[in-house]
Amino acid sequence: MTGIATILGVETYAVGAADEGIDLEALQEAIQHIKEQGKTPRALYLVPDFNNPLGTSLPLAERQRLLRIAHEENMLIFEDNPYGMLAYDGDSFPTLKALDQWGVVVYLGTFSKLLFPGLRVGFMLADQRIANEDGEAGPYLAQELSKVKSLISVNTSPVTQAMIGGFLLEHDCSLKSSLTEKKRYYRANRDQLLQSLEQHFGSDPVLADRVSWNYPHGGLFLTVTLPFVLTPQLLQQCVQEYHVIVCPLSFFTLLPGRERQVRLSFSAVTQQEIATGVARFQQFIRSHTSP
Amino acid sequence: MTGIATILGVETYAVGAADEGIDLEALQEAIQHIKEQGKTPRALYLVPDFNNPLGTSLPLAERQRLLRIAHEENMLIFEDNPYGMLAYDGDSFPTLKALDQWGVVVYLGTFSKLLFPGLRVGFMLADQRIANEDGEAGPYLAQELSKVKSLISVNTSPVTQAMIGGFLLEHDCSLKSSLTEKKRYYRANRDQLLQSLEQHFGSDPVLADRVSWNYPHGGLFLTVTLPFVLTPQLLQQCVQEYHVIVCPLSFFTLLPGRERQVRLSFSAVTQQEIATGVARFQQFIRSHTSP
Repeated sequence: MTGIATILGVETYAVGAADEGIDLEALQEAIQHIKEQGKTPRALYLVPDFNNPLGTSLPLAERQRLLRIAHEENMLIFEDNPYGMLAYDGDSFPTLKALDQWGVVVYLGTFSKLLFPGLRVGFMLADQRIANEDGEAGPYLAQELSKVKSLISVNTSPVTQAMIGGFLLEHDCSLKSSLTEKKRYYRANRDQLLQSLEQHFGSDPVLADRVSWNYPHGGLFLTVTLPFVLTPQLLQQCVQEYHVIVCPLSFFTLLPGRERQVRLSFSAVTQQEIATGVARFQQFIRSHTSP
Repeated sequence: MTGIATILGVETYAVGAADEGIDLEALQEAIQHIKEQGKTPRALYLVPDFNNPLGTSLPLAERQRLLRIAHEENMLIFEDNPYGMLAYDGDSFPTLKALDQWGVVVYLGTFSKLLFPGLRVGFMLADQRIANEDGEAGPYLAQELSKVKSLISVNTSPVTQAMIGGFLLEHDCSLKSSLTEKKRYYRANRDQLLQSLEQHFGSDPVLADRVSWNYPHGGLFLTVTLPFVLTPQLLQQCVQEYHVIVCPLSFFTLLPGRERQVRLSFSAVTQQEIATGVARFQQFIRSHTSP
């Protein structure tokens, strides 16, 4: 997103996240700051459900508040929701799009995380009307964006679209019900990861109070907070000597403050790999933590 | 191309074609004109082999001259070559890229016209070096464009790439030799089309001297010049009453002068359909031509 914004010469501004998703106080400060510079905030991009990399979900009340802010500021919200259907503890929250009474949300979906990434097919709901020259409601934003897309990518391959069509036909045209098996697999992985973290870090006399993690209710990621900054050198050592790959959150954020945090993924791994990986990661962390 | 240029705010300038491809006199006039406006021509886009919609091929001497012009004007040539491998009367001319001794040509290829369109996979040869900040040769243009593409399209589907890979493995990794059957089919269609045109127009007492066409040595298209302008109304009549679809060249060009010309395609049709189509088209043309 920041890459494409740079190409298009669109200025971006990073807003931090709190424990359960985007920090609305920080958002309002950012809006204020942008306005004081004589600029107008146009759009907000976020992943409210089972965020990558954080694993957080924005609570319902915050969703309502966020929508009101966007409405009042005349700002679009790009709601990117690749993981919303991967909820492991009951349903996920209603999407921003479902709660949107002002038409401020553009919803981005993908089949990549639910079927397989190589399809490279996504979709967008953009039912906002574009004003005509005479100020009246013109074509839908989706129509205009389709034109641009057709020029940039010469359309999406009908072969991969047909594969998705076939998959949906095989599952009574319900993506959600087709995910039962995958969700079972991922949920078991999530539980294994939480259990392994508790076992190896939570009961370690040195690390117990110095390592913490969040509890993702869906998606594929979890955040761990470490006692020290995982520098590129330390990361390399972790990979080479302990054969464990983790992703520092600094790879994902434009803001400071997450230097001691890493993302753990639990998607394309076995429970055994998770158990082994966490055990090794604990040994690595332990070797760099003084008692 | 003009669409994407518009989106990017890149100004374009149309250059006419002569009987055998781009008109180099017109090109030089255009360059002169652009410079007189205080601007610099940066790049030229063209389809030198079996052009769509014209069916023309730029002769060898003209290719050499075009390359020299581009070199002298410090201008890139985007050589789009979807049809070059579909040569029916011996080999096609060497590509501009093959003749390029100055590194002025960026070559664009596609598997769509040779395997099937739904794959939506193409390729680009861009071996120009980009100057670093200190003026030295930096990364290849292809590398930089790959980065931009990865941000815009999140990469090309590996599924469709794998289909092409499998096809190539089945044909000893030779795209050219895999086309033998297709070329036979298209060549027979081309010959049928030429024969039908001769039969229906060439021997018509009224139309013989008033309808002409070119002889494409490859590709999928041919140009016919009519005694009158095929207006949208006439085109609709041709489709509705004669069930023949032809494409006015005005659909493809930004310049005047081709209002009496149409493109005939001979790719996804049978020889019988070609014969029937030309016979009907002749009746339509005849009905609008006074003796």
